Amino acid sequence: MRIPLKEIAQLVEGRLIGDGDFEITGASTIWDAQPGDITLADNLRLAGKLEQSQASAALVPSGIETLANGSSKPAVAVKDVHASFARVVKLFRPPPAKRRVGVSPAARISTAARLAPDVEVHAGAVIDDGVSLGAGCVIYPGVHLMQGCRLAENVVIFSNAVLYENTRVGAGSIVHAGASIGAYGFGYQTIDGRHRLSAQLGYVEIGADVEIGANTTIDRGTYGPTVIGDGTKIDNMVQIAHNCRIGRHNLICSQVGIAGSCKTGDYVVLAGQVGVRDHVEIGDRVTVGAKAGIMNNLESNATYLGAPAIPERDEMLLIASFAKLPEMRKQVKLLARQVETLSALLPAAAKTA
Amino acid sequence: MRIPLKEIAQLVEGRLIGDGDFEITGASTIWDAQPGDITLADNLRLAGKLEQSQASAALVPSGIETLANGSSKPAVAVKDVHASFARVVKLFRPPPAKRRVGVSPAARISTAARLAPDVEVHAGAVIDDGVSLGAGCVIYPGVHLMQGCRLAENVVIFSNAVLYENTRVGAGSIVHAGASIGAYGFGYQTIDGRHRLSAQLGYVEIGADVEIGANTTIDRGTYGPTVIGDGTKIDNMVQIAHNCRIGRHNLICSQVGIAGSCKTGDYVVLAGQVGVRDHVEIGDRVTVGAKAGIMNNLESNATYLGAPAIPERDEMLLIASFAKLPEMRKQVKLLARQVETLSALLPAAAKTA
Amino acid sequence: MRIPLKEIAQLVEGRLIGDGDFEITGASTIWDAQPGDITLADNLRLAGKLEQSQASAALVPSGIETLANGSSKPAVAVKDVHASFARVVKLFRPPPAKRRVGVSPAARISTAARLAPDVEVHAGAVIDDGVSLGAGCVIYPGVHLMQGCRLAENVVIFSNAVLYENTRVGAGSIVHAGASIGAYGFGYQTIDGRHRLSAQLGYVEIGADVEIGANTTIDRGTYGPTVIGDGTKIDNMVQIAHNCRIGRHNLICSQVGIAGSCKTGDYVVLAGQVGVRDHVEIGDRVTVGAKAGIMNNLESNATYLGAPAIPERDEMLLIASFAKLPEMRKQVKLLARQVETLSALLPAAAKTA
Repeated sequence: MRIPLKEIAQLVEGRLIGDGDFEITGASTIWDAQPGDITLADNLRLAGKLEQSQASAALVPSGIETLANGSSKPAVAVKDVHASFARVVKLFRPPPAKRRVGVSPAARISTAARLAPDVEVHAGAVIDDGVSLGAGCVIYPGVHLMQGCRLAENVVIFSNAVLYENTRVGAGSIVHAGASIGAYGFGYQTIDGRHRLSAQLGYVEIGADVEIGANTTIDRGTYGPTVIGDGTKIDNMVQIAHNCRIGRHNLICSQVGIAGSCKTGDYVVLAGQVGVRDHVEIGDRVTVGAKAGIMNNLESNATYLGAPAIPERDEMLLIASFAKLPEMRKQVKLLARQVETLSALLPAAAKTA
Repeated sequence: MRIPLKEIAQLVEGRLIGDGDFEITGASTIWDAQPGDITLADNLRLAGKLEQSQASAALVPSGIETLANGSSKPAVAVKDVHASFARVVKLFRPPPAKRRVGVSPAARISTAARLAPDVEVHAGAVIDDGVSLGAGCVIYPGVHLMQGCRLAENVVIFSNAVLYENTRVGAGSIVHAGASIGAYGFGYQTIDGRHRLSAQLGYVEIGADVEIGANTTIDRGTYGPTVIGDGTKIDNMVQIAHNCRIGRHNLICSQVGIAGSCKTGDYVVLAGQVGVRDHVEIGDRVTVGAKAGIMNNLESNATYLGAPAIPERDEMLLIASFAKLPEMRKQVKLLARQVETLSALLPAAAKTA
Repeated sequence: MRIPLKEIAQLVEGRLIGDGDFEITGASTIWDAQPGDITLADNLRLAGKLEQSQASAALVPSGIETLANGSSKPAVAVKDVHASFARVVKLFRPPPAKRRVGVSPAARISTAARLAPDVEVHAGAVIDDGVSLGAGCVIYPGVHLMQGCRLAENVVIFSNAVLYENTRVGAGSIVHAGASIGAYGFGYQTIDGRHRLSAQLGYVEIGADVEIGANTTIDRGTYGPTVIGDGTKIDNMVQIAHNCRIGRHNLICSQVGIAGSCKTGDYVVLAGQVGVRDHVEIGDRVTVGAKAGIMNNLESNATYLGAPAIPERDEMLLIASFAKLPEMRKQVKLLARQVETLSALLPAAAKTA
């Protein structure tokens, strides 16, 4: 496929800079670009690599077309460089039409389940008694929806994810491959030297417009729900323990672990590998840096770092002091010697007084 | 369903406090409680929230009925508040009768496998040659039991868990969804610039009364078993590497990673996100705090914190000193100035001597 | 089975030390050895345990046969103790012949997929349109290969792993159970308070001779590939985010998390639970210690430790200073008192000058 750059400029409603007749043959990131490809440069760092790259043209953000200035290559300036580049990529690599599967005869569906007429259930999915699927749901192969699961409209459950009994999922939410939702909470009472599992009478309640990453685990509540609020996005391999109440529109990055009975507000951001101890409450619009360990409640509208996590400014001060520690140790040793010298001299001096 | 509080008090053999004729219509935690619901308050913090909650009554621990004092709501005092509340929850929300599945015709079972007569094997499970299942085993959909796996009585393997060749599981143990047991150990020898996988001749041996969390991974031994001792409970997404020997009645929390050839004693507790380097031995009744990094053997009967993990008291001292670091840095700077001033004065003073 | 030690010595081309007529009945590690077993002692620590162990004989490394000296037990000295022991283990416990499965009729394979004639596809695997499998591929039960996946020769995908659309896997690579390859990248733009998923037009490209551990997750690129270089070995539960470019022959240990758009050189080693922030570049032959947090680009040919990760020597100095912190705090307090005393004396002394 060969498309003149000026046609691409029209497609993305962008401003052409340079030779509009140049024929583009593909769309790739700067790392993969071959001659003939158009690429994108959304920041100065990438723009600096543009000239040496194999790409023949670039999409750049309008307003900062200077990005393209250092380059001899033609460009198209657009408002939203990522949305525009996505359109161009699809132009050259149109996603294959998905075949409608309908309800596969190779899926095992209980006669006591209720499926909206237009759902898709792939081969090898297993749907137990009392499950309900809203319109537009897509259930991939190997998924197991246990007894009583209730999915609203347009929910997508990717391959081999498992939803234990009575899991509820709100409209438009996505659960990725291998996620385990609703397994037993890790709560034990130790009696006569044996750990006895606590009650497992609860379930997991996932709101609308939620995304759950691959291989993530969310445990059921003890008596009631573990809750994931509307609009919250959870990355891969996140652990959310029993009875947690995650707020709305949170962003929870990969490998975060949240212990039992925690509560987060709205618009909370937890960076990668953060750990949260049990029964902690985190306020609205809190951001926590990677690898932090949250030991206590965190007040709203602030950024926290470190383990134990403290306000960003305090942690930055600690880190700065920490880096100077070996130097400070030398200084203290020097001071000790100086004071010793002074003390040795002073009795003599003092005596003359 | 409407049940007078006095009947609930009888059911849980508790002592009634207040209006026994009040009719209860449900049982929920304090966060979810609606008017008409009974809830539980197992500690003072929750008790403080009782009055403002929507709940109409509460279970409280006998002996500390003062919990109920601040509240105008009727209550029932019981010995074991959690066991009692579980009974009440089941009264209002009886778990649906599980249908007996038997051995599903949609499971793929080798003719060279030996199944006790009363096992349950769900649709989509795959059981290979030489596998044996003891009485009462339940194998959920999508589980793969590879060649030679041996499960004792009453083992439950949840959906999509995978047990590689020759895995052994003791009586009454539970493996949750998505767990991978017996994959290759991560051991390589680098020859001519290529990493060559070590021998993978071992297997995993799980004791009796063990629980393995969702999406947890336990690698096979190099030549013999990786061992999980009787009564040990392992949370979600825990990594246990090849040749480890985990003792009995351990509690290993989520996202812990234990490198190869480690050994733990009995009643060891590892909190969330702990890491253990290879070939470490941990004594009996050791507790290790969240996010700790264990670099050396740990002696029995003690608590360890930090990375590298050291005895709790030492780490607390370090943390306290660390928090004072910026202050100490200022103090050292001040001292340096003072000593300089003194030194400038002293030669003069000393000369007079 | 009973095999005289001298025959074992011949089998492994080793040098016999002691009674060659002793009949060996099994092969086990030192922890599991029963009387009659041969074991291996590959280092001094194990050699010290040899005498008290139940083992009747040992394989020891030639050149350091002194390992066997402290022991009264017969031994065989060999060049490569692990390769030799693997042969002996297989002698006593020959791995059962794997039955050829061919393409199971219980697998669901699109008519628009291309399979080389000698592949194995187990029951319950699902293979979508446009997938191609090279000669010798083995696809275990429950695996889902989505539309357009391309596997070269001799690729093994273990049970319940999921490869999203267009994943490419090079010759001889292995993906372990439960791995999720090609799920959506965790990239969002927040518009009017809602997080909107970025473009998901890319895929994952895994090189040749790569191993991917159980339950590991690798996300697809935004527009192009997330790349895993030839010969790289990835342990269990590793997270590799969208657009990463992992080099060749890396060793990435369990529970490492690498955020989006990172790049590693060749022969990089990341120890357990390391975290890498987004857009970081790591040079060739870099080694990073367990639990480190990598915040900035790392230069080649060096070892880094800590969070934030710094060169090993600097971190060792920091750790040493940190351990002395409580002591230093005492010393500073003492100095402050001494300086105060001196200052009180000195005006008097100075006045006499």
